[in-house]
Amino acid sequence: MSKLPSVGTSIFSVMSKMALEHKAINLSQGFPNFPIDERLTEIHSRIVLEAQSNQYCPMTGHPQLLDGLQRLILQSYGRTVNPATELLVTAGATQAIFTILQALADKGDEVIVLDPCYDSYESAIILSGAKPVHVALNEHYLPDWNAIEKAITPNTRFILTNDPHNPSGRIWSERDYEALETLVEKNPHLLVLSDEVYEYITFEKKHISINQRSKLHERALSVSSFGKTFHITGWKIGYIVAPQHLMDEIKKVHQFLVFCVNSTAQATLAAYLDVVNVNELGRFYQQKRDVFQSLMNGSRFELLPSEGTYFQLASYANISNEDDVTFTKRILTEHQVATIPVSVFNADGRDLKHIRFCFAKTDETLIQAAEKLKHI
Amino acid sequence: MSKLPSVGTSIFSVMSKMALEHKAINLSQGFPNFPIDERLTEIHSRIVLEAQSNQYCPMTGHPQLLDGLQRLILQSYGRTVNPATELLVTAGATQAIFTILQALADKGDEVIVLDPCYDSYESAIILSGAKPVHVALNEHYLPDWNAIEKAITPNTRFILTNDPHNPSGRIWSERDYEALETLVEKNPHLLVLSDEVYEYITFEKKHISINQRSKLHERALSVSSFGKTFHITGWKIGYIVAPQHLMDEIKKVHQFLVFCVNSTAQATLAAYLDVVNVNELGRFYQQKRDVFQSLMNGSRFELLPSEGTYFQLASYANISNEDDVTFTKRILTEHQVATIPVSVFNADGRDLKHIRFCFAKTDETLIQAAEKLKHI
Ligand SMILES: CSCCC(=O)C(=O)O
Ligand SMILES: CSCCC(=O)C(=O)O
Repeated sequence: MSKLPSVGTSIFSVMSKMALEHKAINLSQGFPNFPIDERLTEIHSRIVLEAQSNQYCPMTGHPQLLDGLQRLILQSYGRTVNPATELLVTAGATQAIFTILQALADKGDEVIVLDPCYDSYESAIILSGAKPVHVALNEHYLPDWNAIEKAITPNTRFILTNDPHNPSGRIWSERDYEALETLVEKNPHLLVLSDEVYEYITFEKKHISINQRSKLHERALSVSSFGKTFHITGWKIGYIVAPQHLMDEIKKVHQFLVFCVNSTAQATLAAYLDVVNVNELGRFYQQKRDVFQSLMNGSRFELLPSEGTYFQLASYANISNEDDVTFTKRILTEHQVATIPVSVFNADGRDLKHIRFCFAKTDETLIQAAEKLKHI
Repeated sequence: MSKLPSVGTSIFSVMSKMALEHKAINLSQGFPNFPIDERLTEIHSRIVLEAQSNQYCPMTGHPQLLDGLQRLILQSYGRTVNPATELLVTAGATQAIFTILQALADKGDEVIVLDPCYDSYESAIILSGAKPVHVALNEHYLPDWNAIEKAITPNTRFILTNDPHNPSGRIWSERDYEALETLVEKNPHLLVLSDEVYEYITFEKKHISINQRSKLHERALSVSSFGKTFHITGWKIGYIVAPQHLMDEIKKVHQFLVFCVNSTAQATLAAYLDVVNVNELGRFYQQKRDVFQSLMNGSRFELLPSEGTYFQLASYANISNEDDVTFTKRILTEHQVATIPVSVFNADGRDLKHIRFCFAKTDETLIQAAEKLKHI
């Protein structure tokens, strides 16, 4: 009778709840534990006190925020989008992805996802009526284009991509985007749903956005998240960039799924976009990564490359033969550090004995966590 | 190819946009144009400055808000709900309804809606996979229980009710709830989705909530909205009360549809619930209604009873033979007052020559609007 019979509670809720119960340091669910930009709090407080943003925004978004987004996309990627027809503000990236699939995927369609992948994709695809088709990323967590091409059928409606990649922190190269373009060119029924929520959290290597690939503009949709970019995961404001013919369908669903999105947060972000420089974010998190990596020197974990996002994978193959769910639960209860087992992001449960740390934490937290992790 | 081929832009967006363009007084889309409670703004500003509510809330809601809701439901209706298992905070009532249907209605199911009804219902039902079955309310906008009973088939999964009723402002009686209980008793496959967003906006007659009907508790879900109750339609915070076995399914969808809801707004509402008295709301809007009704004395519109909500229906049969869409567009452009044609809420387009005014406006706005409306 359930429409999602095999779904339990999201691993992020499970781990954050266990972390609380066991007074563990929470490096599991991805959210910062340091203060946000004071300017953002100041603007937020001003908007609240002005009391002009308590009623519905227009359905597609606060007009100034849509304009700010247009400028941001132009600055970041050199793409000019029309704020009236190609942008939509959503209640976070999760709602964005859910809404796109509800609008554009249907019974009989297949949606390719690249495992390991974010846990909302599967259910969002199923509830749209379509069928998820899982293709594994290679051992470096990068796309295996041959495997992807083989998975395409006449029914493939979407390939759902995620770059920078959660949970691995890997970033695609130019040649990955070339391969994607070739795929889209060869398969005229194929659309790209590009989850780019960590677009501004990149280190040595730069992120390529589908918004920079003019060949893809008519066939690709990008999703992003102010939560990730401005350390405000609880505000739940994301956005979609899509060509008008697709956006028109998405808006039909959006207006009856949520109608519009928190006005105070939107008005605040509109003003904040005028003063903030998103390019500082990469440097900020690169330092966090470097701190965490050097703190973990001398632990028995083997760190994998982290090129972007605020996540760091590590292999514990040297430490234990346990499956990763058992291992993460044990180190949570015995060593008071909460992490995420990567196998839960694989539809087939494939377990490479990799776990994910979130390093969007104060240096103090990272020091305390590393201290405990070194004893494992 | 569209999943919602017959859907255009919501009438509320259309009318509010036209109102702006024609500098018309906007009595169409339902939202207040007066200031919110200063205490609410004060708390909101304090929460923002404390900067403790910028990250994800737990998926089902801010713990203090869930506790506050439990107390509110107990005070209002004498029902004790379990905040951990029977409550869910949503991004507004629209998301609540959409999510409930996604979780609990499926292909092969039928969902009965009572026309005229809120325009999100139809699309939310269709996207869930189920089939909307429209039953007209009687000429007083009250349920015709014989007609409803006749519409029930073995496939009927839900009856979607809305009391106090938008657009009519009518309120159901004890005997309506008795009829509903009989229906549910006779049809063990039937659930009730009760949209009660105007629950606290009632005048001479008191609203009966399904939360007061213990016979319905295991078979009914209620949806409400802080937007309506606290004059903050732009905050987009609503909630669901449902028995655990249904709520478990709803949470599965919610966590992948939106994951969680704006933390700042939730923390603010949690604190506000400690100081506010929801019972003042009915008196407040009753006065608005009375002001508007007496201002409309001497107009050629014939006002219908408004027992709750912030809406007032009026017949313009004395004034014009135009269909109601033509009529509302004409008075918007010629007389600068935006209203809502009721026929758009009827699946069959039935047009009784009734239009809807929203009186959630300052007295000044109501005076100016009535002045213009008297010239029609
Ligand atoms: C919505 S909770 C999950 C947060 C997140 O993006 C992650 O931890 O991967
Ligand atoms: C979400 S816009 C519609 C507001 C409203 O509830 C109404 O006007 O009926």
